[in-house]
Amino acid sequence: MNEVRSSPVLAIHAGAGGRTVKLIEHDAEIREVLGQVLDAGRRLLEEGADALEVVKAAITIMEDFELFNAGRGAALCSDGSAQMSASVMRGSDRAAGGVAGMMRTKNPVLAASSVLESYQVLMIGEHAEEFAFRHGAEQRPNEYFITERQQDNLRRHVEEYPAGTVGAVCLDSSGLLAAGTSTGGVTGQPPGRVGDSPVIGAGTWADDAVAVSCTGDGELFIRTGVARTIASLVEHGQSLGEATDRALADVGSLGGTGGLIACGADGSVALPYTTEAMPRGLWRAGGEPQVWLVES
Amino acid sequence: MNEVRSSPVLAIHAGAGGRTVKLIEHDAEIREVLGQVLDAGRRLLEEGADALEVVKAAITIMEDFELFNAGRGAALCSDGSAQMSASVMRGSDRAAGGVAGMMRTKNPVLAASSVLESYQVLMIGEHAEEFAFRHGAEQRPNEYFITERQQDNLRRHVEEYPAGTVGAVCLDSSGLLAAGTSTGGVTGQPPGRVGDSPVIGAGTWADDAVAVSCTGDGELFIRTGVARTIASLVEHGQSLGEATDRALADVGSLGGTGGLIACGADGSVALPYTTEAMPRGLWRAGGEPQVWLVES
Repeated sequence: MNEVRSSPVLAIHAGAGGRTVKLIEHDAEIREVLGQVLDAGRRLLEEGADALEVVKAAITIMEDFELFNAGRGAALCSDGSAQMSASVMRGSDRAAGGVAGMMRTKNPVLAASSVLESYQVLMIGEHAEEFAFRHGAEQRPNEYFITERQQDNLRRHVEEYPAGTVGAVCLDSSGLLAAGTSTGGVTGQPPGRVGDSPVIGAGTWADDAVAVSCTGDGELFIRTGVARTIASLVEHGQSLGEATDRALADVGSLGGTGGLIACGADGSVALPYTTEAMPRGLWRAGGEPQVWLVES
Repeated sequence: MNEVRSSPVLAIHAGAGGRTVKLIEHDAEIREVLGQVLDAGRRLLEEGADALEVVKAAITIMEDFELFNAGRGAALCSDGSAQMSASVMRGSDRAAGGVAGMMRTKNPVLAASSVLESYQVLMIGEHAEEFAFRHGAEQRPNEYFITERQQDNLRRHVEEYPAGTVGAVCLDSSGLLAAGTSTGGVTGQPPGRVGDSPVIGAGTWADDAVAVSCTGDGELFIRTGVARTIASLVEHGQSLGEATDRALADVGSLGGTGGLIACGADGSVALPYTTEAMPRGLWRAGGEPQVWLVES
């Protein structure tokens, strides 16, 4: 048996965006949650969990935290509803699942995960919701996801922190990679609008060399195919840092900003962003969890 | 002014799939329609139309032809409904639009085109339908799309020809590229399932070097990011033929089959497929339209 022993890595993000008052006011709280996510991931990895399991667990915690724009606390559409999307991908066999237009599945990442386990790759709307429910996903009325903070953002047409999305990439002890992303979208977006988060190859990608989760101007991340492009660049010999910088520069060439987290099979990590801030965290086996918000 | 004069090219496909009885029975009719599409595209190109206009016109005709699996004649979901998706992309600025879960917009490619003209890139379900309607797209009851042939396919759980999808890629006289794809999905698919056709980077891609439209096992085309990968390979110096063969081989490595049409800014064209048949057509300025079904 060809056993690969890797030193596990977990990186997470909670959305690229501005250095807002809210981000500063809730600095301690956000750092604490990011730390909790890394701790939970570390425990799982030390118990031998695989990368996909860890990504799902990390994103589930971030979806449940109402200051992040995913699950409860999602940004609201122009009609006041919360419409969420998410995706996950496993690097070893490139199994993937995405959901969009979710309005009552408590943790969209778990719905995406059920899609990954099926033959399908992308499911949308009411049928995706029923699919998730049949696979055991908890459901909530849409009101559960709608927070006062996001209602206030919608009234004031403010895209406050959290601007984006949450995501995780992981390399497990077997050397397997996984990535996942979950979002409520953009404040005031037209209902039915879908960004890059559920789009495999745009917001999320994992293969046997690299795992990527993106956040930012979703439309431009789709139009540049960020996550898949990074994998192609790495395949052509670029370092993870070069590849991720180049992909974000391409988003910039269309006028967009954002960030991403990426992890290579060799344990390399890149956490670049072109916005003012991107709350993010990193844990490596043998080290302590590290968390950053604004500072680089 | 830096005027580029290219020799226009239009390539179209009507779905990769098996060499079925239906394909053989309707051989003449299918060839005739493909010829009409190429003639219509040629007229537009000779009048100076841009690549995106030509792609939209070509796909609209194929959506209206009920033997193709897009628009009227779409493959039916397990619940008997027709749920369609489509996308278009313009190479010069990578503007893109996709729609999924369409049940009453007569020509999904025109809905995708309205999305391209907006800030959004991907719209789904009822809201995408309303969006298209507000932008002038004709609507029909879902029954309009449902043909006896497809009801019979669903009853017999047969994935007959047309197995796939329709698509077009075009290089216009200004040297601009565009691509588009439209589909009804797969017979018996769960409602809410979305394949690669509306997913920019999977089923459709266009930039300033290459335009691609795919057909085949949609889930595997998403999981391999076929269209965006081809663009990356071309960017790294591979010929269009090498790049498209390699991308289809990657789909094959996950157990999938399909085909695609691709056009380069230099006028090169590749029309590969790994199924038994892929009805397709090609017109180059100065030449006669050519159409193939099974033969290569």
